Amino acid sequence: MKRAVVLLSGGMDSATVLAMARAQGYDCYALSVDYGQRHHAELAAAQRVAHMLGAHEHRVVNIDLTGFGGSSLTDQKIAVPQQPSEGIPLTYVPARNTIMMSLALAWAEVLHAQDIFIGVNAVDYSGYPDCRPAYVEAFERMANLATKAAVEGHTLTVHAPLMNMSKAEIVRQGNMLGVDFAQTVSCYQADETGRACGVCDACRLRRAGFAAAGVDDPTMYRLT
Amino acid sequence: MKRAVVLLSGGMDSATVLAMARAQGYDCYALSVDYGQRHHAELAAAQRVAHMLGAHEHRVVNIDLTGFGGSSLTDQKIAVPQQPSEGIPLTYVPARNTIMMSLALAWAEVLHAQDIFIGVNAVDYSGYPDCRPAYVEAFERMANLATKAAVEGHTLTVHAPLMNMSKAEIVRQGNMLGVDFAQTVSCYQADETGRACGVCDACRLRRAGFAAAGVDDPTMYRLT
Repeated sequence: MKRAVVLLSGGMDSATVLAMARAQGYDCYALSVDYGQRHHAELAAAQRVAHMLGAHEHRVVNIDLTGFGGSSLTDQKIAVPQQPSEGIPLTYVPARNTIMMSLALAWAEVLHAQDIFIGVNAVDYSGYPDCRPAYVEAFERMANLATKAAVEGHTLTVHAPLMNMSKAEIVRQGNMLGVDFAQTVSCYQADETGRACGVCDACRLRRAGFAAAGVDDPTMYRLT
Repeated sequence: MKRAVVLLSGGMDSATVLAMARAQGYDCYALSVDYGQRHHAELAAAQRVAHMLGAHEHRVVNIDLTGFGGSSLTDQKIAVPQQPSEGIPLTYVPARNTIMMSLALAWAEVLHAQDIFIGVNAVDYSGYPDCRPAYVEAFERMANLATKAAVEGHTLTVHAPLMNMSKAEIVRQGNMLGVDFAQTVSCYQADETGRACGVCDACRLRRAGFAAAGVDDPTMYRLT
């Protein structure tokens, strides 16, 4: 059974990706990164999702990016926007996907895995540069020059199966594969129990996705 | 004054790179990564070197790679080789430079720095894949697709000024720029005070470099 490292945030996208990787027959090693994000409900969700969808193992790597700051997700002084904005929003975390994929690359090499899955999406997304196809391709190319495994001929593939899907398509895909979205947390400022704010970018995209898919939204919203 | 992030391990190569970046007029932000390497004498050396060579700031980011293992530097069960070996040695740490450069990329973006310096070398080196020119170029290309800064037109350059230098040339370059090599630690298994074993790959390359440069070797070796 082929092994894959699956980046798992606890949100609906990466949960769907884990279900897709399992459906393709991969033995899945789920990796979450605690980078000092605003809330830890997301990591608790990742743990539930990894178990629910049959990951072989789930690891959380700690790396404190709050020292660098530069994002409303890692710097308490920068508020999470409540309204859509022009350009790349304040929730962008500098080099986040690059750091997370680098860690996935390290673990993949040790596991002799040649596949990494990530839930980035370039349709209904926040405009983050490290969610675009050209970025993912460039990372894969770099990774295939970076490792001993690659030098020895074991080519790494970075799978981004949601890249061209709308949020509604992601909802339908996850539903079809039995993902219980009630267990996932997308909100940038969920409370300790995982209840969502309903107004941040992540909440807006998620709500619209359920609505467009015609699927009941199981998200727990808190009273505001 | 242009800012640069300089990866600083505490060894002779990255110390020389810091001196070179300073000589080119950069305001230098030194970054060390505590990834669970065998000894911490290297990080203590990095701190001394950053101060000695006038870095604006020195940060140490903690990230525990011992959970992944796969290298004699991060797994106590794998011994550091005492003899030269064929191929890529056991001291190779999976994806290490990719992880460190990703962190440098994150900090550079927050600092509005467009330059990262790293002391990789493909001449007198241990054969690590992530020290080769093609790797560094691929990282730079990926980085220029990864960030908000890049999207906004601020191109990032990854400088690897030692890439084509022999160890003897590095010794001479550092000497010329006033690097006190006695403050640096290259050994893979230095003791707590920074004294070197004299027999690991890093020690062998370093000793040979001083000998070939005709420069006195100030390294403190321990009795074995």
